[in-house]
Amino acid sequence: MKEKLNPWESTDISDYDKLIQNFGIKPMQKYCSKLDDFHLIRRGIIFGHRDFEKIFSHITSGKKYVLMTGLMPSGRFHLGHKMVADEIKYFQTKGAKIFVCAADIESYLMRGIPLAEARQTAVEEYLTNYLASGISMENLTFWFQSDYITPYYLLRDMLARRPTFNELKAIYGQLSTEKIISSLTQAADILHPQLPGLGGKRPVLVPCGADQDPHIRLTRDIAKRETEYDFTPPAAVYHKFMKGLTGGKMSSSDPKSYVALLEEPEVAAKKIMSAKTGGRESLDLQKKEGGKPNECVVYELCLYHLTLDDLELSRVYHECVEGKRLCGECKKQCADSLKKYLKQHQRKAGKVRGLAEEIASKKRC
Amino acid sequence: MKEKLNPWESTDISDYDKLIQNFGIKPMQKYCSKLDDFHLIRRGIIFGHRDFEKIFSHITSGKKYVLMTGLMPSGRFHLGHKMVADEIKYFQTKGAKIFVCAADIESYLMRGIPLAEARQTAVEEYLTNYLASGISMENLTFWFQSDYITPYYLLRDMLARRPTFNELKAIYGQLSTEKIISSLTQAADILHPQLPGLGGKRPVLVPCGADQDPHIRLTRDIAKRETEYDFTPPAAVYHKFMKGLTGGKMSSSDPKSYVALLEEPEVAAKKIMSAKTGGRESLDLQKKEGGKPNECVVYELCLYHLTLDDLELSRVYHECVEGKRLCGECKKQCADSLKKYLKQHQRKAGKVRGLAEEIASKKRC
Repeated sequence: MKEKLNPWESTDISDYDKLIQNFGIKPMQKYCSKLDDFHLIRRGIIFGHRDFEKIFSHITSGKKYVLMTGLMPSGRFHLGHKMVADEIKYFQTKGAKIFVCAADIESYLMRGIPLAEARQTAVEEYLTNYLASGISMENLTFWFQSDYITPYYLLRDMLARRPTFNELKAIYGQLSTEKIISSLTQAADILHPQLPGLGGKRPVLVPCGADQDPHIRLTRDIAKRETEYDFTPPAAVYHKFMKGLTGGKMSSSDPKSYVALLEEPEVAAKKIMSAKTGGRESLDLQKKEGGKPNECVVYELCLYHLTLDDLELSRVYHECVEGKRLCGECKKQCADSLKKYLKQHQRKAGKVRGLAEEIASKKRC
Repeated sequence: MKEKLNPWESTDISDYDKLIQNFGIKPMQKYCSKLDDFHLIRRGIIFGHRDFEKIFSHITSGKKYVLMTGLMPSGRFHLGHKMVADEIKYFQTKGAKIFVCAADIESYLMRGIPLAEARQTAVEEYLTNYLASGISMENLTFWFQSDYITPYYLLRDMLARRPTFNELKAIYGQLSTEKIISSLTQAADILHPQLPGLGGKRPVLVPCGADQDPHIRLTRDIAKRETEYDFTPPAAVYHKFMKGLTGGKMSSSDPKSYVALLEEPEVAAKKIMSAKTGGRESLDLQKKEGGKPNECVVYELCLYHLTLDDLELSRVYHECVEGKRLCGECKKQCADSLKKYLKQHQRKAGKVRGLAEEIASKKRC
C-alpha cells in the first residue's frame, strides 16, 4: 500500500526513500556538492525536490525567481520551523525574491483560530524570528491571506465553517468544488447586506423560483449557525414557473420556448400564434365542451403578465371554458397585446441602456 | 420519496402543494388579500414563502428591510425572468432597499461563461430590462460578484474549476468545505506571484516539509490545467523533520518536545539535558560499543542547527560512535551552545520586533 501523506496532520515520516519511490519526488543528492554552502542541502536534510533543476539554472545564470512559503500562525516558532527560516535566508542570498504568506484564513477554517490571534502569533513568533534569523526585509513580501480579501469575500470564506459536508450533499447531490464555492458565494451574496458597514442586521427578502429553495434553506441554516457575524436568517417568497410557449420548459437555450423582452415584437407575435393552447381537438368540440385555460400557455401569459385587470382576465377565462372564445382569435388578441407591450418596453429600454452601463461600472474594490 | 429540488438544473415542478408539504415552505394564501395590489401575489403565482411574516410586519409598520436577488448572467432576459423584475418593482414601492447581484463568478464556475461576457449580458439583457420594467435606480444596489473580489481571490475562485473532486479526495481523504477552500487558497498563495500585476510568469520555489507534497502536487496540476492564466508550475524542495526532544514528534502542542526560539534560554537548556539521546543502557556498554548518533536528538540538533562546521560535527559523530564521547558531557556542550545561540538570537529579535509589526500592517486592499 502506498504511504499516505496528510498535510494537515503532520505525519511521522520514517522512510524518505519511500517518498521518492512512491510519489515521484526527485532525490536532491546531485545538489549536495553544487550548493555546499548551505548545510541543509550539503547534509541531505533537504532530501528531495520537484523541478529544482529550473530554480538551480536560474540561480547559476542570475535570472529572477521567487521563493514562496506559507506559515500557519498557531503555536510557538520552534527549532523545527527554523529550517524554513534558514531556507528563506539561503535562497534570498541566491537571488530569490521572497514571498511569505501568513495563512490566517486557513488557520481559521482548519483550526478555528480567530484572525486577530493569528495576526498576533504571525508577528510575534514567526515574522520576528524570521528577521532575527537574518532574513532581510529587502526582497521580502509578507502578507496575511486576509489582507487581500474584501469584507464580502471574507464573509464568504468564514461561512465555509458552517455547513457540514453531508448537509451539502443532501442539498446539492453530487458535489463539486464549483458547486461548493458557488453555494457559499450565494450565501454571502444574500447575507452581506447585513454586514456592519453595509446596513447591519435587518430582514432580507429573497424572491425566487421554487427551485431556489435549497439555496435559501442552506443560507438560513448558515445564518443561524454563524458565530462571527450576527444575521437575521433571510426570508423568501417563491413563485411558480411559466410553461414554455411550446408546452415544455421555458428555457434560455430554446428560443422557441420563450419571448425575450428585447426581441423583435413581430417575431414574438409569431411565437404566440404557434404556441400550445388549451384548445380542444376540433372547433366543434371546443364550442361544446369549452377550452382548458389552466393548460393554456396563452392564458398563462395573460395571467402572469399581459392582462393585469382581474375582471378582464376573468372574462377571458369564462369565455374560454364556456366555449365562447376560440383559440385563433384569442391568440391574436394575446399577440397584439404582447406586441404593444414589447414596443412600449423596448422604447423605455433604449432610454435606460446608458444608465444600465453606468450602474454596472461602479467600482467596489 | 421526497421530491428533490436542484437549483442548478431548473426543475419541472408539477405540484406546488408537495413543496409545501415536503420542504416546509409556507403557503402564501393569507397575503393574497392583504397585498392585493400585486397580481403575482393576488393570483397565487407567488404561492409560498419562508419568514414572510417578518417582512410583512416591516412593510405595514414602515420599517426598513432589504430585497436581495441574484441573476445568472447567461442567455436572454425573457418573460420567465420578468416575474422577478415585477417582484423587485413591487417591493421597492413597499419600502424595500434593493440589492441585485450579477452572479458572474457562479456563471463562470457552473457554466464556464467568461467574466467579460457575463458582464455584457448582465447589462444589456438584465439591468436594461429591469430599469425598463420600471425598477427605480434610487434604492438600488447592483453589483457583480467579481466587483468585490481582488485579483488574489479572483485567482483562487477561478482555480476552483481545475481540480476534480476525485483528485481532491485522493489527496486529502475525507473532504470538507474547509479543506477545499483552504487547499484552493494555498494554490492561489503559491501561484499569485505570477499574476500579471505582481511579477508575471516565472519560476517559484516552495521549500517545505515532505508532508506538504500533496499541496504541491495539487498546485502543480492546477497550474498545468489552468487556461485563464499562464503559470509555470511551482518547484519545491522538501526537508526532513526533526525528531521531538523526548523522542516522539516535535509538536507545537507539546512544549517538552520543542525548543522555541524565544523561550528562556535556561529553560531550553534544561530540556536538552533531559532529551532522548542515542546512548547505551550503561556507561560501560557505551564506552565499549559506542553511541548511536543517528538515533540521537542531541546529535540531530547539532546536525540541523547548532554545529555548522562540518569538521566539528564529524568529530562529534566519530567520538560518539567510538565510545569516546558520553551523553552527559555531550548534552552539556549542546545545551551551552543552544543557550549561546538563543541569547544572541533573542537580542536580535528584540531589535526587529517593531519592524515585524510594521511589515505585517501593510495594507493590501
